[in-house]
Amino acid sequence: VTRPLTVLPVTGVPEVRPGDVLADLLAAAVELEDGDVVVVTQKVVSKAEGRLVRLGAEAGAAAAREVVERESVRVLRRRGDLVISETVHGFVCANAGVDRSNVEAGTAALLPVDPDRSARRIRDGLLGRAGVRVGVIVSDTFGRPWRRGLTDVAIGAAGVAAVVDLRGTTDAAGRELVVTEVCVADELASAAELVMGKAAGIPAAVVRGVDAAWLRESSVRTEVVRPPSEDLFR
Amino acid sequence: VTRPLTVLPVTGVPEVRPGDVLADLLAAAVELEDGDVVVVTQKVVSKAEGRLVRLGAEAGAAAAREVVERESVRVLRRRGDLVISETVHGFVCANAGVDRSNVEAGTAALLPVDPDRSARRIRDGLLGRAGVRVGVIVSDTFGRPWRRGLTDVAIGAAGVAAVVDLRGTTDAAGRELVVTEVCVADELASAAELVMGKAAGIPAAVVRGVDAAWLRESSVRTEVVRPPSEDLFR
Repeated sequence: VTRPLTVLPVTGVPEVRPGDVLADLLAAAVELEDGDVVVVTQKVVSKAEGRLVRLGAEAGAAAAREVVERESVRVLRRRGDLVISETVHGFVCANAGVDRSNVEAGTAALLPVDPDRSARRIRDGLLGRAGVRVGVIVSDTFGRPWRRGLTDVAIGAAGVAAVVDLRGTTDAAGRELVVTEVCVADELASAAELVMGKAAGIPAAVVRGVDAAWLRESSVRTEVVRPPSEDLFR
Repeated sequence: VTRPLTVLPVTGVPEVRPGDVLADLLAAAVELEDGDVVVVTQKVVSKAEGRLVRLGAEAGAAAAREVVERESVRVLRRRGDLVISETVHGFVCANAGVDRSNVEAGTAALLPVDPDRSARRIRDGLLGRAGVRVGVIVSDTFGRPWRRGLTDVAIGAAGVAAVVDLRGTTDAAGRELVVTEVCVADELASAAELVMGKAAGIPAAVVRGVDAAWLRESSVRTEVVRPPSEDLFR
């Protein structure tokens, strides 16, 4: 794990429309290498998958609220227009991930139905069309309790570990490590965000040089989403 | 924000002892450039600052519990040996950041008294001794609700923005962004963790190529720590 890591913004991807094949657009925009991890933002995945709803020009806020309720299985907190809820996927985030920025006026983007499957589809597409074995992460921008500011996290993954288990390994002094599980998928999503910017129209980034041991089958839903029964804060 | 980012592990730093000047050890281990962000793990900062307590060989668990209580201003949750509490700094984390891995048996490392000040001291030292203007982040490994796995976050910062405010900027379609504040300090800490590994004895990493606009005075305590009154989950 001592190689340098490089994070490359993917530029030159055209505006994504429903039905577009993201693997094709990405393969055309960037020269990928075996072992790269491609981080793709939720917004373009949702657009390609047609996960857009029309809200109507006037009833914007009310219609958006209705969509948020529909995408939620449980509301944790409300403050003004802000709803913190658990989505059908098990994510806890603001407004169930429903987002009105960077989409056409009067519409909103919903989260992909199954972001792990979205990641697998892109991964398989890149293998088939560009002939490269890469990991893929679908990322989104979430807030969190206790700390201000948003960070990007993984909502889907394929071909790259979501959580790496260090149990059984020892620290530099030879004692068994207590801190054992690192969510590398979220860390990769965060690293990718640093080169994307929110306004720059960069829908993806490539992380090159990740530990080869992390390149395995995975799933954010099974590895990262914490069931309410395990959660001290639900 | 479209340049590639490079994350370099800092290897060859000797075992850190109380009184060591981290800026000297880091400057000797890596060739820094103006505009780099140096991410230093809490563990070596705490060691250099002598933030170590002896627990006694036998009463390990009980003594550790006492230290955790002393470092906490408020306990949020308990489960078995795990305490989630708010530290004197305002961080919410497990066991008040008290850590028994990678330190001598029978001792524990406490968080630095003022991690922003720790970061400033390293930053000033690197300017004075190596002549480079860099940003410095002190990182630690925290869990979070709702998601499994730990990620590295910033507990102190100097010379690099903690939270970047995108308010007033517009998205690619020209509409004002709703999502406005990104915690780049936490994202930088996470990116750095990816090259460090928990067991490898790598106490720091350099992130090269960050947006020059982020290189300004900052503070994790004032920018990132969310006061309980603003927090929907306390």
